[in-house]
Amino acid sequence: MDSGRVRPPALRWRELGAAERQQALRRPAQVDGAEIAEVVAALIEDVRMRGDVALRALTARFDGVVLDDLAVTEAEFSAAETAVSPALAAAIGDAAGRIEQFHAAGMIPPYAVETAPGVRCERVLRPIRRVGLYVPAGSAPLPSTALMLGIPARLAGCRDVVLCTPPRADGSVDPAVLVAAAHCGVRKVFKIGGAQAIAAMALGTDSVPACDKLFGPGNAFVTEAKRQVSRLEGGAGIDLPAGPSEVLVIADAGANPGFVAADLLSQAEHGPDSQVILISDDADLINRVAARIELQLADLPRADIARHALRAARMIQVENLDEAFEISNDYAPEHLILAVRDARAWLPRVQAAGSVFLGDWAPEALGDYCSGTNHVLPTSGAARFVGGLNVASFQLAITVQEVDQQGLRAIGPCAIELASAEGLDAHRLAVARRLDVA
Amino acid sequence: MDSGRVRPPALRWRELGAAERQQALRRPAQVDGAEIAEVVAALIEDVRMRGDVALRALTARFDGVVLDDLAVTEAEFSAAETAVSPALAAAIGDAAGRIEQFHAAGMIPPYAVETAPGVRCERVLRPIRRVGLYVPAGSAPLPSTALMLGIPARLAGCRDVVLCTPPRADGSVDPAVLVAAAHCGVRKVFKIGGAQAIAAMALGTDSVPACDKLFGPGNAFVTEAKRQVSRLEGGAGIDLPAGPSEVLVIADAGANPGFVAADLLSQAEHGPDSQVILISDDADLINRVAARIELQLADLPRADIARHALRAARMIQVENLDEAFEISNDYAPEHLILAVRDARAWLPRVQAAGSVFLGDWAPEALGDYCSGTNHVLPTSGAARFVGGLNVASFQLAITVQEVDQQGLRAIGPCAIELASAEGLDAHRLAVARRLDVA
Repeated sequence: MDSGRVRPPALRWRELGAAERQQALRRPAQVDGAEIAEVVAALIEDVRMRGDVALRALTARFDGVVLDDLAVTEAEFSAAETAVSPALAAAIGDAAGRIEQFHAAGMIPPYAVETAPGVRCERVLRPIRRVGLYVPAGSAPLPSTALMLGIPARLAGCRDVVLCTPPRADGSVDPAVLVAAAHCGVRKVFKIGGAQAIAAMALGTDSVPACDKLFGPGNAFVTEAKRQVSRLEGGAGIDLPAGPSEVLVIADAGANPGFVAADLLSQAEHGPDSQVILISDDADLINRVAARIELQLADLPRADIARHALRAARMIQVENLDEAFEISNDYAPEHLILAVRDARAWLPRVQAAGSVFLGDWAPEALGDYCSGTNHVLPTSGAARFVGGLNVASFQLAITVQEVDQQGLRAIGPCAIELASAEGLDAHRLAVARRLDVA
Repeated sequence: MDSGRVRPPALRWRELGAAERQQALRRPAQVDGAEIAEVVAALIEDVRMRGDVALRALTARFDGVVLDDLAVTEAEFSAAETAVSPALAAAIGDAAGRIEQFHAAGMIPPYAVETAPGVRCERVLRPIRRVGLYVPAGSAPLPSTALMLGIPARLAGCRDVVLCTPPRADGSVDPAVLVAAAHCGVRKVFKIGGAQAIAAMALGTDSVPACDKLFGPGNAFVTEAKRQVSRLEGGAGIDLPAGPSEVLVIADAGANPGFVAADLLSQAEHGPDSQVILISDDADLINRVAARIELQLADLPRADIARHALRAARMIQVENLDEAFEISNDYAPEHLILAVRDARAWLPRVQAAGSVFLGDWAPEALGDYCSGTNHVLPTSGAARFVGGLNVASFQLAITVQEVDQQGLRAIGPCAIELASAEGLDAHRLAVARRLDVA
């Protein structure tokens, strides 16, 4: 690869051995985990010991601003409403409406079943009592993430919602983030970023209430902080194992190379560690996409980030689309675009992915912002075993059993038999003592 | 506390300060985490390097048996069917029927919503491709756990299910566990226990297939192994943060002290680190329960374990039941028994718990075995933010968006506005380039 061009290596899948195939699908190596873990552990300990004092010191150090009050005031919320253009405010409301519509329709209901006469088993749902949302602002503020976290939290019925996002150099929070938060009914917003925000929401300080579960994407420090606080005794829960963002596009000969190139670039601009993969059964399509990437890069302000990410890009030529879906299912991409004819007919072949985009008119950007699905999705292969955020992520499903004397007589003997087989006599006796009376 | 009696300290909640209250609700201290982590890391590395050779060596060392074949054969399955008594076989089938009935009724459906003309958003469900179940056999084999893992896996549609359970000294697996596994359609059973079983299912060996997600309870080594393999690059997912089992009983003056004592003991016999808590607004009830515990202990074969666990037990006297529910919600018990009059009326007060047992005739043992609910539940306070196992735990919920040209025209401008606000130009362009054509 010469330095001026970024055409990623095109691989003919059939010609690769097992080790080469494995190598081709490896995620880009992450920054040094041990070093990050050490830094983060020290930050968490600092927040535990010094609370708000630590938060202010860390904010001065990492965000370059000295804050008296970490909380966003009502005056700041009001100012944000006027600072945001009407077009942007409308877009936030418009996106929120579709996100709410889709998420509300997928809520799990409570239910009850009489599994034996006198034995009623139920699932009841409760909002998680206090949730903490993290909205990163690394290279740009992300009002869309405030919506993707805040809307399901509200639908779940969470009354106590805390949101942390890094302050800008002037000590303010991006107004679009505040408008999006307010749209979800979130008014407890703190100007705290990075691992210190996670520590604050997990442990609580004088300003920031301790939360039961933490949500939201972030860089390697945020991710490590979530992992560490979730291991503490009585620590907060966390949403998803998070890693760099990724897209896999399966394209056939009929795909539009310009669209495919644009989709690959929209993923690549996320960060230098983003991964983009194109799989096609058509060598010509691959070449045309590669050429379009070169052309389109010229227009991109974030071309440097994209170029960096493209170094880890893969373009894979397969014999047929069946093979493409096998590879995709093994890779389990966060985003999967099916730029193939009759895309819906291929959907049953998708066995592992975060979110799927069907056809030529469904760029990933629609899912990132406003189709209605959530953009907080499993990365790093976690789509093999977990789906993205949804309302249930903000709820507890508690099971209940209500048993009367008749019910105990019906199923008690079964419990006694099994408890005996397991050698758990006190279990057996807890039933038997009641049966003697019942 | 004298050595002969195990009456736990009765605490009057109103008389405790904040620190004493916090101390009263602390889970018992766990065994040394750092040492376990080191042992487990070495075991995982051994399994990674030597595969089946390591598994055989570790099985010889920890289970005291040298095995040629780690897999349970069809002949062993057949032998198990005849080795299990008809009464036990019937109890397994009976319990399985109710567990299946309750779990099937709670499955989440796929759904689709048109969020704008030409924009169809969906949730589709896929079974996780390969799941690994761990059935411990520490002090006793646990056929009930095989049902609690195997039934939701089958309902989820998982076709590739692996189960590991420790062999007995004669190299066989407990026949009741095999009968329960077969009842769930699980035929890939391996005689492997402990952290090495988790390593085998996460990494794969010549005998044991690598799994996408691991399920099931276990001791501190198993729990640590699950945690470690879930952190590996491309590592398997895991079900729940697991810790020692626990029960909290809220009892009023009308409760039956003998029943309450039996329930507390049935939890205490699980292990020396189990925690049991009784909260009542009636001092007399607390005294009578304590007396019954002494009496009932005399009958228990596992009295030593129970006595040990009872050292960490708490009996808390409150002014009224409102206070009892506040304490319970803060503690977030795995099991919550409401031995109160009109228990159902109190259910809305439960904000955090794994599984709830209503009334005097619902001992925890019914939920452990055969009411229909799952017994793999959040411990160590995790019930603040997560529920127990269910069919969805074995499925992926994948979101899908299908967008046509009309749909892109409808929502594309919204995405463009938000992408611009976030400074993500390639996102904007992925939409804009299509809109130019559409």
